[in-house]
Amino acid sequence: MIVILKPKTPKEQVEEVIDEVAKLGYKPHPIYGELQTVVAAIGDERTHHTLESLIVLPQVERVMPVQKRYKLASRESQDGDTVVDVDGVRIGNGHFALMAGPCSVESEEQLLSTARAVKARGAQILRGGAYKPRTSPYEFQGLGKEGLRLLDVARRETGLKIITEVLSERDVELVGDTADILQIGARNAQNYRLLIECARSRKPVLLKRGMSERIEEWLLAAEYLLANGNPNVLLCERGIRTFETYTRNTLDLAAVAIAKKESHLPVIVDPSQGCGRADLVRVLCRGAVAMGADGLLIEVHPHPAEALSDGQQQVDFEVFSRLVEDLPPFLAAASRTLA
Amino acid sequence: MIVILKPKTPKEQVEEVIDEVAKLGYKPHPIYGELQTVVAAIGDERTHHTLESLIVLPQVERVMPVQKRYKLASRESQDGDTVVDVDGVRIGNGHFALMAGPCSVESEEQLLSTARAVKARGAQILRGGAYKPRTSPYEFQGLGKEGLRLLDVARRETGLKIITEVLSERDVELVGDTADILQIGARNAQNYRLLIECARSRKPVLLKRGMSERIEEWLLAAEYLLANGNPNVLLCERGIRTFETYTRNTLDLAAVAIAKKESHLPVIVDPSQGCGRADLVRVLCRGAVAMGADGLLIEVHPHPAEALSDGQQQVDFEVFSRLVEDLPPFLAAASRTLA
Amino acid sequence: MIVILKPKTPKEQVEEVIDEVAKLGYKPHPIYGELQTVVAAIGDERTHHTLESLIVLPQVERVMPVQKRYKLASRESQDGDTVVDVDGVRIGNGHFALMAGPCSVESEEQLLSTARAVKARGAQILRGGAYKPRTSPYEFQGLGKEGLRLLDVARRETGLKIITEVLSERDVELVGDTADILQIGARNAQNYRLLIECARSRKPVLLKRGMSERIEEWLLAAEYLLANGNPNVLLCERGIRTFETYTRNTLDLAAVAIAKKESHLPVIVDPSQGCGRADLVRVLCRGAVAMGADGLLIEVHPHPAEALSDGQQQVDFEVFSRLVEDLPPFLAAASRTLA
Amino acid sequence: MIVILKPKTPKEQVEEVIDEVAKLGYKPHPIYGELQTVVAAIGDERTHHTLESLIVLPQVERVMPVQKRYKLASRESQDGDTVVDVDGVRIGNGHFALMAGPCSVESEEQLLSTARAVKARGAQILRGGAYKPRTSPYEFQGLGKEGLRLLDVARRETGLKIITEVLSERDVELVGDTADILQIGARNAQNYRLLIECARSRKPVLLKRGMSERIEEWLLAAEYLLANGNPNVLLCERGIRTFETYTRNTLDLAAVAIAKKESHLPVIVDPSQGCGRADLVRVLCRGAVAMGADGLLIEVHPHPAEALSDGQQQVDFEVFSRLVEDLPPFLAAASRTLA
Repeated sequence: MIVILKPKTPKEQVEEVIDEVAKLGYKPHPIYGELQTVVAAIGDERTHHTLESLIVLPQVERVMPVQKRYKLASRESQDGDTVVDVDGVRIGNGHFALMAGPCSVESEEQLLSTARAVKARGAQILRGGAYKPRTSPYEFQGLGKEGLRLLDVARRETGLKIITEVLSERDVELVGDTADILQIGARNAQNYRLLIECARSRKPVLLKRGMSERIEEWLLAAEYLLANGNPNVLLCERGIRTFETYTRNTLDLAAVAIAKKESHLPVIVDPSQGCGRADLVRVLCRGAVAMGADGLLIEVHPHPAEALSDGQQQVDFEVFSRLVEDLPPFLAAASRTLA
Repeated sequence: MIVILKPKTPKEQVEEVIDEVAKLGYKPHPIYGELQTVVAAIGDERTHHTLESLIVLPQVERVMPVQKRYKLASRESQDGDTVVDVDGVRIGNGHFALMAGPCSVESEEQLLSTARAVKARGAQILRGGAYKPRTSPYEFQGLGKEGLRLLDVARRETGLKIITEVLSERDVELVGDTADILQIGARNAQNYRLLIECARSRKPVLLKRGMSERIEEWLLAAEYLLANGNPNVLLCERGIRTFETYTRNTLDLAAVAIAKKESHLPVIVDPSQGCGRADLVRVLCRGAVAMGADGLLIEVHPHPAEALSDGQQQVDFEVFSRLVEDLPPFLAAASRTLA
Repeated sequence: MIVILKPKTPKEQVEEVIDEVAKLGYKPHPIYGELQTVVAAIGDERTHHTLESLIVLPQVERVMPVQKRYKLASRESQDGDTVVDVDGVRIGNGHFALMAGPCSVESEEQLLSTARAVKARGAQILRGGAYKPRTSPYEFQGLGKEGLRLLDVARRETGLKIITEVLSERDVELVGDTADILQIGARNAQNYRLLIECARSRKPVLLKRGMSERIEEWLLAAEYLLANGNPNVLLCERGIRTFETYTRNTLDLAAVAIAKKESHLPVIVDPSQGCGRADLVRVLCRGAVAMGADGLLIEVHPHPAEALSDGQQQVDFEVFSRLVEDLPPFLAAASRTLA
Repeated sequence: MIVILKPKTPKEQVEEVIDEVAKLGYKPHPIYGELQTVVAAIGDERTHHTLESLIVLPQVERVMPVQKRYKLASRESQDGDTVVDVDGVRIGNGHFALMAGPCSVESEEQLLSTARAVKARGAQILRGGAYKPRTSPYEFQGLGKEGLRLLDVARRETGLKIITEVLSERDVELVGDTADILQIGARNAQNYRLLIECARSRKPVLLKRGMSERIEEWLLAAEYLLANGNPNVLLCERGIRTFETYTRNTLDLAAVAIAKKESHLPVIVDPSQGCGRADLVRVLCRGAVAMGADGLLIEVHPHPAEALSDGQQQVDFEVFSRLVEDLPPFLAAASRTLA
């Protein structure tokens, strides 16, 4: 940590800071600058007390951490890229995953027709929400167990792997019985208890970035999964909240590249949530691939105008077809292979 | 709902929208403007299918809801302000609550000395985290059950009521055995399963606004509590995430006034989280009272520089004293009484 | 405009709104819904008084405009894409422009070596700031007229076209003597007097999006240029300000696609400002092309570590080479041709 | 500056950084931590080259400035608070200013009736825009010179001082002939040429914070005024842009307190722009005073529903009366005197 003192701090107040730094377990190293004194605190920040609290001392102007706070999620913790194996479908290190399906599971016909359609066009993984976190308690909350049953039917019929969201610690086992990938949504992105429970399941987990989560915090949420014993983590960029109103969220495609620089984990992009507009999904898929994404998570519905949730961001089968047809040159240029 | 069509939409495509509106359960009412046609969809939006999905039709430019989405939380649902009774301490409708205590419960001495100090200065409710949601898995996660036990000791010794955070559905009963108010933190502000479980407990709940939660969404989260049978809801503004870096969060004091206009629920302000800087807490308390808050939730610690969590935003006993001494004229001018 | 009244508004207060709508020049058309009354105001919103001020009437809950506010910038105003001709270099409608050069013009050697390097790698247009808007008055403010002279030398030597920023209405003529494209920076994105002066010059103008400018506002700023007689407008996405700290700005690549849907104007991407990190520029160029950009504006410096401004976001010649080598497959897949 | 190197940087690469730091004019001081090496660069950051560009070296992880970048605007540059004297009306150091009037000057009757009304209720300064920066070129742009003439009439009749916005460097002298305070609006908050021109006029300047301007940048914009010879600067908080949609802007009242801690300059609050809603202006005035503001800038109009600009945020005479009646206890508690 670096502790910056205010200009003209008298010697005895510098000493006070030095003593406090030592008391909290660091080796203090003062540097006397032209205008300000700085105290470097030597020690591993991840095992010591944080010094950020020293800001409450009147002579302290700022405290800056030196180290990155994530460890297992960082590039430094392992050589090469993580490959997550989803029951035979490999994701990461060049292996590209196409996940598609409806926002919510609504009915057997809706789900199966979508499953067949996306499989025919190259998807390996079927998405579909059985439990839906809805902003209003009066909105459709998902079919629950019946939704899980339908996902199971779809898997058996099509052979697609299943990704579905889990909202509650209590449901992790139940959802895990059906899901090949547990999805943690943006609203639960920092629900650490749910993360720990998902970690314990050892199932692959797709971890969405929270609506206003910094990349550092997102990687620290992944660290909760890794530190609790689950190495099968997929990061998912799904748009952040900004002032812009033409889109529901601002898809932060630079975050894909940064997450891949900072971490060895695969990064998936959700262009549907990412902008909240069906008409932009196709072009955002191109952009995501070009930026180095390891997979896409796309909402597809037979009749988006009549969807029970988020119809405005779901594409129909025809748009999905064209979207998939677009991808090969981008995948090739980005050194990605769709299995 | 109002469905706005693109300029020059041909008649048959207008008809298609009218038919779809009718199919989804609304009475369509087209209005032919000078440049654009608009279809008003008459019907209760809270019981019908949303029409926002119609945006996927190529001739639709925009879809705008007319009604507010919250009902029980809204001013229209009841006359007058809600008063939440916390085991004898009344909050709302002029009754002002002072809640104070450490960010985390760290030890018996730390908690009891703080409890005594804040009680002596007029607080009626003691805060203190036993379960802490920390950004990094390597940070202090709270004392857990031992923390709850210490809070119980503090209550018995001082008579203060207890507010403490609950992180998990599974802990609601356990935490509720000690807590007089269950606190739902910003990271769980849209963890609807936790909200529902807290609603069922019937305990008073303090619901923090999420880091990037719109006021509408915050009131809809409160609606989850109300619609699941718990009328004892306290809203808590604790700062939103913006680009500003001089503060950890931007305390949205206008939100206090808006929440009170829109809703009958009491609104508490957390100035400690709200800015993340101990040196601003005192003046933010003044501002919060002037803006019409019904209470304050303040982090107080015997030695903030050595606190195990968020020391940078905790005030010591002396600052807390001065802060409380400041309040009377502001409370009087804002027609609030500290019991 | 659509005026939404509060639930249970009595008849005479509805009448009052109807009268006010008529008084302000619209034909009022009331719609009586199940819970709320809505008054549609028929008339061209761009030539009438705005009705947004009706919100001050106590019975009005919300006022929503129907029409888009930009006209000449919109797709509806012309068939096909605008092609901006920069003294023979065509931009838009498939013609892709590569603009590159140092953040600031620092010296003859720095500028000429960079000009030669970027030309050799395919750039058609040289960027370089002679007048720099710097956050602090103590930072390097640009070489001014000497900078313009050096840009002129570089043009004559290399044949590259010149883009450079203009900060002041008073400098438009002077800068226009050297520049082939006048650049309006993010800080002046809504400096309407400067926009009008640049419009009058008839020179091509590259209009950066403001740091927190909504796409609608950005297009309205372009409308200032168009409505004042200058059709040669290039829009430039350069990142928006968000809470994220790993990047200086969040490059909003979806905005490229939206601007191209909404408008016929070419859209350029500035990946250097867009993230503020040299190490991300290369991949962001790929993403920008994939998203449909019509050109790139890239900061290149012989020795970024010693640059007089924004060294952290400038790439050196070697990175620029590799960046340009990356582009062909992305350009091809996106149907763009680099002349 | 503090230069943080990546973990495990080899010795010769540390040397390279040390050499570069020395080359750029600082005295390098390496500190060898447990995991990472840090190079402190000793020297006055305001007179040396910035080292932020060193981030382009592959072994550098982060570069952090130590010093604050503003000097004349900072508390350290003078003892006590600045008092700005506006032709006899003193603002700052306990002297509170009430500035009120219409958003735009629309007509003699509108302006004079408002001037009389606000004077009768205690305002010392009349606001009114003659030149209006409007988002769309089709909106009312102000009466220009005729507006200035009317402001002059109002001053002569009522004795109120005049504050009005200047949009253009070219108008500074003209506007200054009428204005007692030159107002720089949010859109021109970083139009440094306009700032410099206003500085040269020596007139008091009210400098609004930009829509997404950090407090540091706002103070640096003030530094442009101060460093160019004009000490008569009023800072004005007017809301920042966030994701919230219930208000047009989020009034950052903590920024008032921070600006007063960091700087000796008076801080004014504009509650009208600050939230964009007339119904919140009254309570925001209370909050602003409680937070330590030195004045208020309030939009008042005889008939807000028919205003030519921003009617939704203007209060009428009756609301203004009640608003002023509210203030005395808040002013007293905050040690402010309305002259």
